Parts: sequence; C-alpha cells; structure tokens
Amino acid sequence: MTIECPDVLQPEMPPTRWGDPAHPAGLPEGVRDLVGLVFPVRDTPARDDVAVPAPRLGDDQLAGLRGIVGDENVVTDDALRRRRTRGKSTPDLIRQRSGDLADAPDVVVRPAGHDEVVAVLAFAQAQRIAVVPFGGGTAVTGGLVADRAGLSGVLSLDLGRMRGLLALDPVSSTATLEPGLRGPEAEALLASHGLMLGHFPQSFEYATIGGFAATRSSGQSSAGYGRFDAMVVGLRVATPAGEVRLGSAPANASGPDLRELFLGSEGAFGVITEVTVRVRPVPEVKRYEGWRWPSFAAGADAMRALAQSDLLPTVLRLSDETETAINLADPSGIGGEGAAGCLMIVGYEGTAAAVAAKRAAVGEVLTAMAGSPLGEEAGRSWSQGRFAAPYLRDSLLDVGVLVETLETATFWSNRENLYTRVKAALEESLGEGTMVLCHISHVYPTGCSLYFTVAAPGGDDPLARWLPAKAAACEAIVAAGGAITHHHAVGTDHRPYLTAEIGELGAEVLRAVKRAVDPVGILNPGVLIP
Amino acid sequence: MTIECPDVLQPEMPPTRWGDPAHPAGLPEGVRDLVGLVFPVRDTPARDDVAVPAPRLGDDQLAGLRGIVGDENVVTDDALRRRRTRGKSTPDLIRQRSGDLADAPDVVVRPAGHDEVVAVLAFAQAQRIAVVPFGGGTAVTGGLVADRAGLSGVLSLDLGRMRGLLALDPVSSTATLEPGLRGPEAEALLASHGLMLGHFPQSFEYATIGGFAATRSSGQSSAGYGRFDAMVVGLRVATPAGEVRLGSAPANASGPDLRELFLGSEGAFGVITEVTVRVRPVPEVKRYEGWRWPSFAAGADAMRALAQSDLLPTVLRLSDETETAINLADPSGIGGEGAAGCLMIVGYEGTAAAVAAKRAAVGEVLTAMAGSPLGEEAGRSWSQGRFAAPYLRDSLLDVGVLVETLETATFWSNRENLYTRVKAALEESLGEGTMVLCHISHVYPTGCSLYFTVAAPGGDDPLARWLPAKAAACEAIVAAGGAITHHHAVGTDHRPYLTAEIGELGAEVLRAVKRAVDPVGILNPGVLIP
Repeated sequence: MTIECPDVLQPEMPPTRWGDPAHPAGLPEGVRDLVGLVFPVRDTPARDDVAVPAPRLGDDQLAGLRGIVGDENVVTDDALRRRRTRGKSTPDLIRQRSGDLADAPDVVVRPAGHDEVVAVLAFAQAQRIAVVPFGGGTAVTGGLVADRAGLSGVLSLDLGRMRGLLALDPVSSTATLEPGLRGPEAEALLASHGLMLGHFPQSFEYATIGGFAATRSSGQSSAGYGRFDAMVVGLRVATPAGEVRLGSAPANASGPDLRELFLGSEGAFGVITEVTVRVRPVPEVKRYEGWRWPSFAAGADAMRALAQSDLLPTVLRLSDETETAINLADPSGIGGEGAAGCLMIVGYEGTAAAVAAKRAAVGEVLTAMAGSPLGEEAGRSWSQGRFAAPYLRDSLLDVGVLVETLETATFWSNRENLYTRVKAALEESLGEGTMVLCHISHVYPTGCSLYFTVAAPGGDDPLARWLPAKAAACEAIVAAGGAITHHHAVGTDHRPYLTAEIGELGAEVLRAVKRAVDPVGILNPGVLIP
Repeated sequence: MTIECPDVLQPEMPPTRWGDPAHPAGLPEGVRDLVGLVFPVRDTPARDDVAVPAPRLGDDQLAGLRGIVGDENVVTDDALRRRRTRGKSTPDLIRQRSGDLADAPDVVVRPAGHDEVVAVLAFAQAQRIAVVPFGGGTAVTGGLVADRAGLSGVLSLDLGRMRGLLALDPVSSTATLEPGLRGPEAEALLASHGLMLGHFPQSFEYATIGGFAATRSSGQSSAGYGRFDAMVVGLRVATPAGEVRLGSAPANASGPDLRELFLGSEGAFGVITEVTVRVRPVPEVKRYEGWRWPSFAAGADAMRALAQSDLLPTVLRLSDETETAINLADPSGIGGEGAAGCLMIVGYEGTAAAVAAKRAAVGEVLTAMAGSPLGEEAGRSWSQGRFAAPYLRDSLLDVGVLVETLETATFWSNRENLYTRVKAALEESLGEGTMVLCHISHVYPTGCSLYFTVAAPGGDDPLARWLPAKAAACEAIVAAGGAITHHHAVGTDHRPYLTAEIGELGAEVLRAVKRAVDPVGILNPGVLIP
C-alpha cells in the first residue's frame, strides 16, 4: 500500500520570512506604537534584489543527477535555490533579509523515493558533492548550512516528493510515513483512518516527518503523547555505505538500540526515507484550560508532582512571570492585584471518559498545591495562537526589534539554577531594554525543558548583537550542566558545545559512526559532528 | 555522598546450579513420580571433581593487576574461577555439570571503583588480556564466555566490590548506583529513603544494576515501571579509550542518544561503572489478581487494548493454554469444565487511591472484553513463586529432563505468526514428548514479548538435543521478523542472528563503535558484535 499525499503545490515559505506568504505581514495597527513604547522602532525591510551565487556544479554533474531523478527534478533556478538557503532561525532570517545568500545550494534535487535517494547519494559520493537533506526548511540551529570545504558543490536534497503513507497496521497501531510529509499532511492521511500521530511542535504547519526524526523534535502535546523520538518504532535510512532498516519490535535487547543513533542524526549519518510511528485514535474530546500560580517555582513544582505521579495531561506548559505578563492581553487577570503570576496551560485529549477521569485527578493535585483554575478561555487563547509566534517574530524584525528563542533541559533539582544563569547571561550580553521570557513546555518525571524567548533592541547590526548573546547563553547552559538543546537539535550553531555535553570519547564515537556510513563525508558536512 | 552496601559475604551461587546453595535441591517428594509420568526420569548428578584449567597469565601480569587493585583482589583460586565460569543458561549448566570448565577465566579481579576499572582496562589493553565484566553471573545467552583468540588470557572483572549508592536526588527522583549492586541490595538502599527502583526480572535476587543496563533487562513490573533501559537517565562507562559520561537531561535533542548505544552493549563497548536511574516512592499498596480468558488470543487482545489505551497496570502477564495448565496446581479451575483457558496476572502498585482508580478502569476494559476475574489467590500464588522457576529447572536437570527458556518480541499484528512458528520449530526439533509453554509478560502499545519455556526428554546428550532446537527457534524468529531477543540480550548465543535483524550496515556501525572505544578488542571478545 502506498497512499500519496495529494500533490498540490503547497504555499512555500518566502526566503526571508516564516510561513504562508498570504499571511498578513507587519504589525497590526496600533501594536507598532505599543512596541515603540518598549523598543526603538524603525522599518528594516528585507532586500530582495540580490542575485543568488551561480551554481558551482558542472554540466556533467547536473546531467548525472538528471539521469537519476529526471530533468524536472534537478533545479538550479534562482528562486528555488533561494528558498532552499538556510532555515528559519533569526540569524538565518537576518542574513536572508540582508541579501547574504552565500549559503545557497548549487542545485535542488527532488527524488521520488528511497531508491532514488540511494542513487543520488552514490552519485554525490563519487562526485564529492555535499548533500543537505531538506524537509520543511524549518531548522533553527543551522542544520541546513553545509560546509563546502573539500567538496565540489552543495546539493539540497528536497524530500518534497516523498509524501506517502507507505503502510498502516491498525492492529499494531503503527504507520509508515515518508519523510517529506509535513505535519498537517501526515495528520490528514492518518485522520482518514480515524488515527492521529499527535506531534504538534510550533513548526507543525511546515516541518516534516523526516525532520522530526532527524532532529528529535518534541511537540506541544509531549506530556501526553511523548517526544517524536518516543513515537518512532522503525526507521529506514539511506547512506552512502548502504541502507539500514531498524525496528524489529517495539523494544528489544538486541544490543544497542541503533534507532536512537539515527534519530537525532540531522542528516549527517544518512537520509531517513521511512519512519514507522505509533499512531492513536483521533481524540473525541480536546479541552485546554488555564491555571494560575503565584510563581514560576510554584507552577514548576506542580508540574513535577504530576510527572512524578505518572499523572500527566496531554498538554502541560507554564510561562514564567515575564512571559505571562507579555502574552496576556490583560496581564492584570493573572496573579491577582498587580501581583506577578504565572499562567499554566493544561490540556486533555482522549475519550470523553478518559478526559473526565484525568481532568479530575490532575485538578485534585493542582488544587491541593494551591493552583487557581482559570477556565477554558486561557486554554482557547493558547490553542488558537499555538503556531503563530514565528509570524510575530517577522513583524518585530520588520521594525528592528531583535527576537529569538533558545531552549535547554535539565533535571528538576537544577531547574532554578539553569533558568537563572541563562536568563542572566542573555540580559548581560544584550544590555538595557532586553526582555527574557521563559516557559516549561516538556516535562519528565526527572526533569523538564526551559524555552527562552528574547526580545531586545536590534540596533544597527542585530546579528552582531545576537551572536555573542547566544554564545553567552550556550556557555551558561554548559556551565549549569544543562542539555545544549532539548528539541531544536545541534545543527551548526550548537556544534561547538556538543563535546562539552557528551565528552571527547562521545564525540569520537559519533565520528567513528560517521566514517562507517559516510566515508567521504558528503552528508550535511559541518552539521552535528564535533 | 556514597553509601556502600554492607559488605556481607552474600551466598554465592554454586557453579552448577541457580541461586542460594541453601535452597533445597531435588524434586519435592512425590513430584518426581509425577514428572516420571511425562518424561523419562533418571538421576544425572553434576560432576564436581574436575580440575579448573591452570591460569594462563604470567606472574608479571598478575603482579601488575595486584598493583592496581591490591593483592587480595586478584584471585586465581580454583573455587572462585569455577564460580566465574559462564552464566546460568541451560547449556551453561549442562557444561558445568559435565565438568567442562574450558571457559574458566584465568584470574578474577575485583576493582573498588571507577578509577580502578579504568586502570585495569589500560593494563589489560597493554597486555592484551580479555576482560569479561561480571555482575551477578545470571547471563543466559553466553555473555560471559570470552573468545581468547589472539589474546594472552581472560580476566573476569568482578564488580562485586562496587556496590554503592553514589548519589540520591529526591527532587529529581534519581539515584546513582554502582554496577555491582544486586537487585535486592539496590532496593534495600533505596527503601531506606522511602524509594524504589521497581525492576524485578526473574533473576532479581542475583542480577546486578550493571547487568540490567548492559543487557537491556526487562522486569516483571515493566507494564507499570518500564524496561530497565527506560529507567536509565545517566551512565558512566569506562573504556580502554577513555571514559564516557552521559545524561545531561531526561531527554534532549543533542544528536544521537549515546546512552542507547551503551545500554545493551554487553561489556563489548566498556564497563558501566555508574548508572543513574529514575526512582519512585515505595508503593503503599500492592494487589495482584488473576483473570481467566478463553484463549491466548483473547487474552492478548485484552492486553493490546489496555496498552493502546495507555491504561496499563503495574504487572500484566498472560500464559498460553499449556503454560496455564502446567503452572496451576488445579488446572480445572481455569477455563471452566475441562476447557483450555488462559491465566492472566494483573498487578497494581501505588497509592491506595491510584490503585483503586487504575483497578476500576482496567477491570472495566477486561470485563467488557469477556475476561473473568479470579480474585487474589492466583495473584498471590504467582507473586510467591515469581523468582523460583530456575530452582525447578535445576531439579528437572537433576532427573534428566531438558528445560530451557527463550524469548522474542514483535508487533501485535505478528504475534500469532511468531508464536506459531517458534513453537512449531521447537516441537519439530525436539520431537515427541516435548512441551512448549509460552507467556506474554511485557507489552507495549505496538507489540509484546513472547517468552517460551521448553521441557523435553534430555536423552543421553541433552546439549546435543538442545543446540539444534535453539537454532531452529532462532531461525523461526528471524523468518517471522521478530527480535532475536526481547530481554535476554545477544551474548554469544544470539550473535549469529544479529546481522539479520540490524542489517550488514548496522553490524558495521557496531564494529566501528567497537574500534573507537576498544581498538585492541579486549572487551568481552566474541560477545554481541557480529
């Protein structure tokens, strides 16, 4: 069985912005003035008159690729290469907006399936062409920026034609999906069978199944449905040294779990061509509610209590005092009379009976810990805006405000320390007028993630302001013993910090695996591997 | 903080039998006659008059080891080397009983901690001495049988002095344990803090923390508490190439999860010297009940329904018709009037309120699927005998009956096929008079384990009868697409089948990692790596 996703031309993201090009750009009327009360505001339009560097591959190389995937699927067109340049981090967007297209690929190649991927990799290895797998283009840590050194060119391996549901096993509750399926496409294919994947990261509308697997993505329903890596039971990976098929059973003792070596491998160990995931029935009921906590620490303690009782709702997130104040239309509604309170979103999905039972049990714990229920309005508000933040970032970049996010994770006993150090590092680096917001959106019995949003005056050179701030935050994370990333992956941005986390020998193990699967070093060079 | 386990001399297992030497040997009065009704019975006593091969290490090598761990911790004594020979599979026991001690190590070395392990590995590498990590000695797939080829000798690295609780983080609910702690010792250390690990494999009384991690063990409470690998949040591993410390957070996106590469590495990638695990409060209430199902398939469907509803009790196991009939004192109590029924054990642990809520919800599902509750007697009976099966095996070997177990796992839709093929392969190989019992004791939303127990006439050469039967079962597993092992590990016995499961490139990845961490190849040579 193969059910292909309808081959409609989806709205591609513009090269300098997030999301649907039809989405209204710019700040809503009146909001610009409000922003101007906090940050210096000035129009900083993107340049769109810059030529893309000429493709650096030879005609014989292009002809070889055409022989594999067909003429129409080897594209050197400037417009498409521009859209395949970098991802959607703020540095990526700033560079794109300034007209810096130095990282443009030389060619975009669109294989139809696993066998064509294998053939492209063999050809690219023989020709020493770097291969950058491209799914949704939503990378935010430099995972789409290949290092050309020693190679003859850069090929963007666009997986957009690999959008099939290859197998569905309703008895085992598994589905085998192709990597190019975007989140909504995968959910639509499954929904026609009454099933759901349940992975909803902020990038959901554009990010793809392959990218979720390659970057260990985690979605907004991770409390109930788990991280993406926890949903994966099987993988097929094409590498220059051959293919790997993994997943004989949900779990086994057949040595090291090699699925966990290819999950998070960010295109550096191979191209993920099939992903078999656990699926679930589409929930009957979805109910999202707000709860108020007197402090970030009090709310975090409640999250910990739920996680350690194995009593997690489907969605569980908590904003710190600053994020709560900024994100609410009426901040005075939270925390009582001018007090700084914290908003928690608690969401339940499932059968009506399961939602009722879970909601009663969770509510009992939250009430006992002095949380105050705020009802469904706060939940609806969060739910409606859950994928919209990147559009707001664009609008703020348009008026010269620097906005970016970063995230980490740690054990519960280290949460406060990590939070304090990262926040201080960002504030110190960016100086006066900086706002640092934080939330916890992924919890475990033993710890949680911390997701920071930073807004600061952009100044004349926002990139020159951001890069040292990001470095300071990364150094603070390393010093505090946190993970350099909880769900944004390593890419090129975090690569300098990975060795501190996994050690010299851990880094050498990654290099050893890399040599085994990619002896020439064509796969996403410069990404991930220290 | 380091709290060492009291250094009492634990009762060591005899070299030819399982468990406590004080445990009554032989079949209970009357039972021998019953067994004789089914199998030919004759006394087959173990030989204990065989000399252990002389140690093959030189005096300078032994002196070097004494310089690292102290004189008293370098032991060449025959009695100890005999107890460090092989594990506790039926082939191991048959060989030991016949006086075959060819696999005896040359020396037993007992390091005091991580640093001494590092020093021993460095010395062993320089001297080309094979190192076999030894925890509880409960291996059942040949993981303690090193290949001497090209090496100057074999060193059994006895971790029995590394039995400390190194750290406890009650906020994060984590504990850092040394590898030599046996199951009951680890639980006793944690219980003094009101905490529990909750890992109870059949080998619990003897197996160790390091072994649980190195073999991806799974315990009888896996439905509620998860497999051992799922409990691990951090690892420290000593290798000849240096050390690795992993576990910056409960989960992260910092590339491949290298914890999952050292979990299940069976001593071939390094010696696990510290394991940080999630812990839980000691449960207030434990309640185990029996349920009756008309068939194995009906019971399996009920397990699947629970797992796919994320509604799992703490213990969930189901015996097939044969196992149900054999294991019950009064088989007529199951399945109604002479009908072949199947016994399910359903156990709940936790706070009184959580147990009551879970029991009500699970009971509703089981009742709706036509299960019949049998009450607590069946649960008590299972609970009392849960670690005792290996003693019965010894007693049956004593009277010439061949008894062994093997296990696999697959996705739900393949359960029946795998079950049928493995059972048929065993029956066909061992011929008339063979009894094959099976149970499901580990379930997942997408699949389950299958655990087979085989009893057959031993004949003149039980090993010559068993080895082809085991090979036939392994080939049936591979042909049916199951995992070659769900929780017994690869060892030497399953090594020939691993490549079929992970592919040629998967095997090459393991070899590449092996070269990186153990370039000379001293770590458990011949185990795991194809």
